[in-house]
Amino acid sequence: MTSPAGGPTAEATPPLRVTVLSGGVGGARFARGMRRHLARSGREAALTCIVNTGDDMWLNGLRVCPDLDSVMYGLAGVHDRDRGWGRADETERVSAELLAYGVGADWFTLGDLDLGTHIARSQMLREGLGLTEVTSRLSSRWDLGATLLPATEHSVETRVRVGDGPDDTLHFEEWWVRHRAAMPALGFEQAGADAAGPGPGVLEAIAEADLLVLAPSNPIVSIGTILGIPGLREAVRSASSPVVGVSPILGDAPVLGMAAQCLTAVGAEVSAAGVAEHYGARTRDGLIDGWLVDTKDAAAVDRLAGSGIAARAVPLLMSSDELAADMAAAAQALASSLRVAG
Amino acid sequence: MTSPAGGPTAEATPPLRVTVLSGGVGGARFARGMRRHLARSGREAALTCIVNTGDDMWLNGLRVCPDLDSVMYGLAGVHDRDRGWGRADETERVSAELLAYGVGADWFTLGDLDLGTHIARSQMLREGLGLTEVTSRLSSRWDLGATLLPATEHSVETRVRVGDGPDDTLHFEEWWVRHRAAMPALGFEQAGADAAGPGPGVLEAIAEADLLVLAPSNPIVSIGTILGIPGLREAVRSASSPVVGVSPILGDAPVLGMAAQCLTAVGAEVSAAGVAEHYGARTRDGLIDGWLVDTKDAAAVDRLAGSGIAARAVPLLMSSDELAADMAAAAQALASSLRVAG
Repeated sequence: MTSPAGGPTAEATPPLRVTVLSGGVGGARFARGMRRHLARSGREAALTCIVNTGDDMWLNGLRVCPDLDSVMYGLAGVHDRDRGWGRADETERVSAELLAYGVGADWFTLGDLDLGTHIARSQMLREGLGLTEVTSRLSSRWDLGATLLPATEHSVETRVRVGDGPDDTLHFEEWWVRHRAAMPALGFEQAGADAAGPGPGVLEAIAEADLLVLAPSNPIVSIGTILGIPGLREAVRSASSPVVGVSPILGDAPVLGMAAQCLTAVGAEVSAAGVAEHYGARTRDGLIDGWLVDTKDAAAVDRLAGSGIAARAVPLLMSSDELAADMAAAAQALASSLRVAG
Repeated sequence: MTSPAGGPTAEATPPLRVTVLSGGVGGARFARGMRRHLARSGREAALTCIVNTGDDMWLNGLRVCPDLDSVMYGLAGVHDRDRGWGRADETERVSAELLAYGVGADWFTLGDLDLGTHIARSQMLREGLGLTEVTSRLSSRWDLGATLLPATEHSVETRVRVGDGPDDTLHFEEWWVRHRAAMPALGFEQAGADAAGPGPGVLEAIAEADLLVLAPSNPIVSIGTILGIPGLREAVRSASSPVVGVSPILGDAPVLGMAAQCLTAVGAEVSAAGVAEHYGARTRDGLIDGWLVDTKDAAAVDRLAGSGIAARAVPLLMSSDELAADMAAAAQALASSLRVAG
């Protein structure tokens, strides 16, 4: 892959620009895999993750960005591998104090190390910095090997509709974490989306990507929330790169989280093919060109061909960085085949 | 001391209202002593501490109130007895994160348990509650046996003048904690005092007190700051109760903190008698009627008589609650003698 230093081939090969649309934990694992794949390939590359901000919230006067934190911690390698979220070696001394004072939310864990992030972020935001600059400053503490871009700097909050009344909506984290999705979701709304736009660098990262991937994140409240920001969907549709997605559903169940409840709420089929068809083919007013399904869902490949989506069945395992890197490699290979074909 | 329930004596004895003007750690120890003394006496009593807020500051977007916290923690019995400040069993995991992110002040320790207080307080303040109500809510977690009143709800910041230029002032905590008072103080200023007034309940607690005591706190930047809030000095001067102070200087050194540097900066003598004369006799446009000095400073008693101040020499030790209670008892006894004499 490498060429002699200073040789013509080296000069002729610009860095590969890879952009991943990502939710939280699943997106973080995939981003780690992509980073590993790019490192393995030996090709100089620039990885950008556009991260969902729809779950962000003010909690105890502090700005919490669950997905940005999951991706940052995951890429930094300081995430808790057992719980799947938050920091490793975490404690909750501050949270216990807040509860003892009768403040704080007993349903949302604020670990002590995690609180360091929230306090630093909240201070910078209050000083007037945008979330993108704040995220860059926080991320600079580690060698992430990737640029994290908040999908938007505006407040675009994912609300879960649980009834017909005007007030019958909950913040997504409240629905998911506090009520453990016990109330059936009737739909999802993006409060504030009308007045919002993409964050700095987001449109460029999509337009200039050599490879554009939808991570195996929740297609409704993670990737869907990103795409719901005015301008984002159009940017993905008009990207010069092939758009490849990775199924978050294996068999009939999501690998992580509550994609099933979310898909059901919007009337989508809870299957690898169903998610792909929910996104739709770019050639048919949709968003994706290619789609990776797990080997157990190989039957979806033919079905999706009929929907205008080039699917491949590969092992969709992210239980190790190497396996996640294999997934990322498959996504790039699929995109390359589409580029050649196109 | 007790009388038969429902008997005429019980009905005839209203609660003794004791008000203490207090700084941080020294005031907290004295307040514990006063609480112990009142409990020992068997007399029903209501203890109020009017606490200096001049050292309060925003740090990392959180409102820190060093003296209110010292008094609250001290009365709650959760203070660190070895360090003399902060919470017992403290850790600094969050602070380490803040420093790793390149934010935070490495010169001011924010312990994890302490941060719980600051986060809870800051949230309540941002919700629009006044500092007095916030302090009441925070204090309600414990059975303090005392009411804590911030001297003011306004921002009245103690600034230390270290040069002649308009910008040559530092926040007191920055001077004291960060620079360890290495720069000679030329004077002290109260930024914001002109537009400030006493906090809710403060004037009443002074006017209605049966016993009014100046704790052995820093006479310049703790008690002096309280008295510098417009209306406070006049309230103390016109209190119906005798005003008794306890010397923070034993021999030629303060028991705690940097009273010596502060006294020198304002041209006051660093001695038990010097502090009393700095406050001055109420009969001579000053603030105090009585003054407790340590037995080693017994010579000050005669000198102060000449200044119109009734002084008594007693052991001024606060190394245990019992000894601090003895001090508080001496203050009450001195006040009683003055009341009878007056």
